[in-house]
Amino acid sequence: MKLKLTFFLSLVFLFSQAQNTKDIQQIKKIFDTALSNSNSYDWLNYLSNQIGGRLSGSVQASQAVTYTEKIMNELNFQKVWKQEVMVPKWVRGTPEFAYIELSPGVTTDVPLLALGGSVATPSLGIKASVVEVQSLEALEALGKKKIQGKIVFFNRPMDPKEINTFSAYSQAVDQRSKGAAAASKYGALGVIVRSMNLKQDDHPHTGGMSYGDLSEAQMIPAAAISTNSADYLSTTLKLNPSLKFYFKQNCKTMPDVLSHNVIGEIRGSEFPEEVIVVGGHLDSWDVGDGAHDDGAGCVQSMAVLEILNKIGYKPKRTIRVVLFMNEENGLRGGTQYAKVAKEKGEKHIFALESDSGGFTPRGFSIDASESHFNQIIQWKPLFEPYFIHSFTQGGSGADIGPLKVDGMVLAGLRPDSQRYFDYHHAATDSFKAVNKRELEMGAAAMTALVYLYDTYGQLGAQIK
Amino acid sequence: MKLKLTFFLSLVFLFSQAQNTKDIQQIKKIFDTALSNSNSYDWLNYLSNQIGGRLSGSVQASQAVTYTEKIMNELNFQKVWKQEVMVPKWVRGTPEFAYIELSPGVTTDVPLLALGGSVATPSLGIKASVVEVQSLEALEALGKKKIQGKIVFFNRPMDPKEINTFSAYSQAVDQRSKGAAAASKYGALGVIVRSMNLKQDDHPHTGGMSYGDLSEAQMIPAAAISTNSADYLSTTLKLNPSLKFYFKQNCKTMPDVLSHNVIGEIRGSEFPEEVIVVGGHLDSWDVGDGAHDDGAGCVQSMAVLEILNKIGYKPKRTIRVVLFMNEENGLRGGTQYAKVAKEKGEKHIFALESDSGGFTPRGFSIDASESHFNQIIQWKPLFEPYFIHSFTQGGSGADIGPLKVDGMVLAGLRPDSQRYFDYHHAATDSFKAVNKRELEMGAAAMTALVYLYDTYGQLGAQIK
Repeated sequence: MKLKLTFFLSLVFLFSQAQNTKDIQQIKKIFDTALSNSNSYDWLNYLSNQIGGRLSGSVQASQAVTYTEKIMNELNFQKVWKQEVMVPKWVRGTPEFAYIELSPGVTTDVPLLALGGSVATPSLGIKASVVEVQSLEALEALGKKKIQGKIVFFNRPMDPKEINTFSAYSQAVDQRSKGAAAASKYGALGVIVRSMNLKQDDHPHTGGMSYGDLSEAQMIPAAAISTNSADYLSTTLKLNPSLKFYFKQNCKTMPDVLSHNVIGEIRGSEFPEEVIVVGGHLDSWDVGDGAHDDGAGCVQSMAVLEILNKIGYKPKRTIRVVLFMNEENGLRGGTQYAKVAKEKGEKHIFALESDSGGFTPRGFSIDASESHFNQIIQWKPLFEPYFIHSFTQGGSGADIGPLKVDGMVLAGLRPDSQRYFDYHHAATDSFKAVNKRELEMGAAAMTALVYLYDTYGQLGAQIK
Repeated sequence: MKLKLTFFLSLVFLFSQAQNTKDIQQIKKIFDTALSNSNSYDWLNYLSNQIGGRLSGSVQASQAVTYTEKIMNELNFQKVWKQEVMVPKWVRGTPEFAYIELSPGVTTDVPLLALGGSVATPSLGIKASVVEVQSLEALEALGKKKIQGKIVFFNRPMDPKEINTFSAYSQAVDQRSKGAAAASKYGALGVIVRSMNLKQDDHPHTGGMSYGDLSEAQMIPAAAISTNSADYLSTTLKLNPSLKFYFKQNCKTMPDVLSHNVIGEIRGSEFPEEVIVVGGHLDSWDVGDGAHDDGAGCVQSMAVLEILNKIGYKPKRTIRVVLFMNEENGLRGGTQYAKVAKEKGEKHIFALESDSGGFTPRGFSIDASESHFNQIIQWKPLFEPYFIHSFTQGGSGADIGPLKVDGMVLAGLRPDSQRYFDYHHAATDSFKAVNKRELEMGAAAMTALVYLYDTYGQLGAQIK
């Protein structure tokens, strides 16, 4: 009996060793191909430099739909289609203008960007005294008397001590997203926010904001200023509390317009009903070229099928690339994709999103049950030769979030985060800020995880 | 008896837990300080933008000695001194000039840099046919008949499939370091080498080369051209094998001059005779500002003592910052430091070098015996919260290499390597290519390892 068991265990061992050797070889092929024979960097060049910023509802967003649909068709996906989705359309209008008035006639210009979704200032702009606060709570403590008729300046920096810069972002971004709604309630005329940027520079970073339940009449204009401007304003305010801030913006929210998610798939040879999604978002903010956010995620997602095809791998399951529209200011694409999938009764087992920049991949965050997480964790040694060491539980991506049902596994690519907020939502988010090898390493990491998930399937997921 | 043992083991456990908690806290303080309160980035700004390229023997190298000595004095090190060392002095002279001549009068200019240590061309330059080879072996196979009177063009690219780009560098760099010596033996007039760069761009990358045992009369000029130029030349050669290449350079090797290593130390409170060295090299190539190579390593090394001081840590052992002169073209500083240490009978237990760029730290390479390596490996979990996962055995750094004696531990900081060769030895190695947080993370990683080594000492090293 004991002998038999040993023999059986040896067989299992040999089998798993053989599997492992095959996986090691396949993953080596995936990285080799990504680093020497992928078109992802050229696609990103086109998206960034020929199209540029792709705000939902813009001509550029529409061009990006056409371009990526064309690329997917050239890649010989079995099926490529556009999925209709109505998206919000906010337009920036003519460039903003702002200055600090130290005393009448003595002014310093300040680069400023309206926040996405903000209302315009009156056509002549707003000029008012400034009250600086570090938080929504501090605003509340000041109360109406000290706020009414003023411009509220939110100036809490992102915490440089956070190793994961996304944590620093999460802790600071309420100023941008909720600051205007809060300040309006105390009679503020407008809101300016220190940019969500860990670097000291002159670039304002835009981004989404919401007025919550405010009526149109209560909405006040909100804008971002650069970290350098924020420090300058703060210092100058201490010396001269009566200085005034002026800004003018004529952004506007238009009626929703028709746009599209772009989808391409290769149908599975054994379990076609089991769908694996890999994606990023096609829209971006209008300033900059959306190269890191999220052109990188889009081209990496397309590269997953490009690379699998180049290494001659035939998926057992259906692998679908989804380029979502409108992540930045509505999440309509992600919501629509999930809605249609549910209506059609599609069985999604795994979704992987890349929306944290085209930097060197460090690992994955995985939103899954303990057993499904453990299934993925056992593949970790396969990634270590590529310096991909970090597999953490919890968190995936905004666009694939709505897909989540019990038993499904969601994951997010986690690249090195140190430089991300230097570029995020700013004019600096351009093609030249993306390193070709770092982008390709990310594509390879995604391809390797999709390969493993396709090969082994999800624990207990097979419907056959 | 059993109870007693359990009690004893519990005490050991509690003690080691307490140590661990203290280490976790200290390392958190180290990273917090590095990311929010270190001057390393400002020092690098000065070295890069106020001083610039610091080739051994140059005015800039001398300015860098003066500047870093001043900084160390301001940091209140207990002892700061300059250690004399004679260094080679090679000068580039007036800017090089080169072109491809497709046919008489039809030329395309080519950016070109003389390799460090090369002789000049004749004053009117060299114009000759080009023979392209991929390796020293291929050169040998061609033989004298096909090489004599020609310019040899070494064009084997760095392998993009290598995940660690330093491996790709090692595999390709013989063309640069030994190409001229080899080609001279077959009667070549000169050598041009494809830049050691994984990126396609227009920047030639210089670097050291040697003529080996050749007499002065046999030395032929050698230079680098950019990856773009190399591809263009290679393609054009196939269409037009009779094209000619022209280049002119008037670089020169001068007599050796006096220079210095810069050294600062804090003396150990318990084991002052045990010396821990942390360092980088102060010299750089003359093109670019030597920001990554190796201004980063110098400011990170100084930051180790700055940070330990700021968190109030008093070293038990003597910690010495050594900024080595002449790593790039002679290693005289590293050799001299080791020589003096030996003469004085100093006991070095640990040396850590940073000379792989100021990028996000990924780990350390450790040149040590099995037992000493295992001592360091046990600290690895302390680094994982900072995404520093890779502790590998073997390899440290060029400047600390000569210090090695039996029982000593050498280590090298291993940052992410994907972008390093975009900048290495090129005009692009400038301050703006360094990210503040990545630089500071590297300084923190080094400080943490030095802190642990100082706290626990080396297994079996204490002389008391």
